[in-house]
Amino acid sequence: MQTSDILIIGGGIIGLSLAREVAGYGLRVTLLERHQPGREASWASAGMLAPQGELSEGAFLQLCLESNRRYPAFRESVEEEVEIRCYHREAGTLAMAVTDEDEAEFRHTYERQRADGLQVEWVSGEEARRIEPALSERVRGGLFLPGDRHVENRVLVPALEMSCHMRGVEIVCGAVVTNVLAEDGRAVGVDTTLGPYYGGTVINAAGAWSACIGVPDPALRPPVFPVRGQMVAITLPRPTFLSRVVRSPRSYLVPRHDGRLFLGATMERVGFDKRNTVWGLHKLLSGAMELFPELEHCSVQETWAGLRPGSLDNHPVLGATPLPGYLLATGCFRNGLLLAPVIAQEMAHLVVSGEASDLIAPFNLARFAAAEVVAGRIPGA
Amino acid sequence: MQTSDILIIGGGIIGLSLAREVAGYGLRVTLLERHQPGREASWASAGMLAPQGELSEGAFLQLCLESNRRYPAFRESVEEEVEIRCYHREAGTLAMAVTDEDEAEFRHTYERQRADGLQVEWVSGEEARRIEPALSERVRGGLFLPGDRHVENRVLVPALEMSCHMRGVEIVCGAVVTNVLAEDGRAVGVDTTLGPYYGGTVINAAGAWSACIGVPDPALRPPVFPVRGQMVAITLPRPTFLSRVVRSPRSYLVPRHDGRLFLGATMERVGFDKRNTVWGLHKLLSGAMELFPELEHCSVQETWAGLRPGSLDNHPVLGATPLPGYLLATGCFRNGLLLAPVIAQEMAHLVVSGEASDLIAPFNLARFAAAEVVAGRIPGA
Repeated sequence: MQTSDILIIGGGIIGLSLAREVAGYGLRVTLLERHQPGREASWASAGMLAPQGELSEGAFLQLCLESNRRYPAFRESVEEEVEIRCYHREAGTLAMAVTDEDEAEFRHTYERQRADGLQVEWVSGEEARRIEPALSERVRGGLFLPGDRHVENRVLVPALEMSCHMRGVEIVCGAVVTNVLAEDGRAVGVDTTLGPYYGGTVINAAGAWSACIGVPDPALRPPVFPVRGQMVAITLPRPTFLSRVVRSPRSYLVPRHDGRLFLGATMERVGFDKRNTVWGLHKLLSGAMELFPELEHCSVQETWAGLRPGSLDNHPVLGATPLPGYLLATGCFRNGLLLAPVIAQEMAHLVVSGEASDLIAPFNLARFAAAEVVAGRIPGA
Repeated sequence: MQTSDILIIGGGIIGLSLAREVAGYGLRVTLLERHQPGREASWASAGMLAPQGELSEGAFLQLCLESNRRYPAFRESVEEEVEIRCYHREAGTLAMAVTDEDEAEFRHTYERQRADGLQVEWVSGEEARRIEPALSERVRGGLFLPGDRHVENRVLVPALEMSCHMRGVEIVCGAVVTNVLAEDGRAVGVDTTLGPYYGGTVINAAGAWSACIGVPDPALRPPVFPVRGQMVAITLPRPTFLSRVVRSPRSYLVPRHDGRLFLGATMERVGFDKRNTVWGLHKLLSGAMELFPELEHCSVQETWAGLRPGSLDNHPVLGATPLPGYLLATGCFRNGLLLAPVIAQEMAHLVVSGEASDLIAPFNLARFAAAEVVAGRIPGA
């Protein structure tokens, strides 16, 4: 009989970061992964850490900002532990307007973020082209967000996996979790395609697949569903073409340390379908040429899609459930990479102390009206 | 010492068809192929046989029409010989106008082709949608070309290779031909990366690579260069979505027997570069959605590019050269698949009889001004 202190379902950025953190407390951790760790949304992502990039507010904005503050220490700790460099970029983000509507939208964001005391600057088209000379003449300015970061997720995620190994986390690949097992009103483990695993605490960090796991009561099922993001990788015309993330309301462009440029991303509720489509690729290629006309001659290297774990209110689902011993750490939507430090640390604190901190308390499962969840009105689920 | 009656350089549709035909006369044929037969332009093609599709006229139009007439017998002879079905389609082509300019262009083509006595009909938008119900409401009509055909080139080409084997053609793979060898003012063979090959007649059918082969005199070099065509394959929404080839002035769509739809093709003078680009894929995806809005949700399966053998006047280069024993069968540009039957048969006749027929005589190398060729003013070469 396989027994651990903590069973974590899902080996994405959240499951790996959490397993690593909990193992740091000296607990025995088993992580159950369907395929290979970190090859779903964590891999598909472009690696933007954009606390102000999304139109966040309230407790969610605070959660994002706090995780962003903790990022450098988090990343450096992983880098030192496994002796790998994660190629972070601290050059901020340009959010650029091309149309009247774009400009109105960014002006509104600017006013609101200034009122909230956030770091944001308005730049004219000319100023933007001084920062990124390849920007189109059609760009009429927009926001500079100095606090937005970038990390090479395809380096960070394997580094986290290695750190887990070093901290004694048992990572089981190919284990599809089918059910949460409960006894005497308490979670005691999970059933998987490789047989049962037992543990004192079970944490569901299965991302877009979180709602696929059988639970004793439908009210325990998080209202989480896949949101497809299509992506394209192109080669840059020259290594110095672009120094930071640039986006418009229609797309974003992320320069990577290997000389490629990632174009993202669509937002589509189409179930567990990771295909690229005619519309999706067309949108991404249009978005790139709109901001940087020179990119039209660049070669397209790769296309793919990832499934973000969306939730009913687009915010994560964190912490305890009505079933003692069964916790959730999922629903991070577009912000899984950004939120990894704060979720790993605050969830580990919850596991050890039994207390949810003020940071994560607002994101518990109870906030969703039971009716919505039970009645199966979960889109895409 | 390797000796044959006929050495053919290049294992594309032209080289294979010609080798098969010449072997049918009982001659010993060796075909030299750089990589694998039929995997360059012949494979990249969508398989359209469009004698009236391109804006052809004069001797070139007659060559295309004659090859189209010979196609059924050619295809059936291959099919019977190797017991393979090449999935031809005889449903004609729709050439559809969306803009004012498109309509003016197609009206002009219609009038000219009617005057030439060709088979062409004008169809309204409504009539077109009765023929292909998925066509966009924005389509305002255009041409129906009942004589245009389609063949599954990725079946036909391997079938031709098999037929060559059955007829005793020696196919040498991995032999890059570097030079034509001449003795006493006559071609006697070629030098290759696998050593020399000798033969009484050498025929250059190397497609886009025809001008890369060293010759004793620059005047022997055909003014042929690569013209890139980017392609996309998508899955059809349903098998009955489209029954025939449909094109606009910006793109064409070819339904394939495996339920895929091929979108083609760009025309780019970029040397021997087979990459897909941002602009190229964007153009193909736009072109598809313009004609069939429903395609936007279809998945993109594959992208690739091929190198057509363009020539200075966009017509093939066929027949004898100033060097006795050295012949050309190249420069077929967008029409290699269509022209295979007539070129194979007329070139074989030339080899056997020494006489160029009226069909191919207008396409000899001598038509290009020597100055243009010798001075190296060959674009892309």
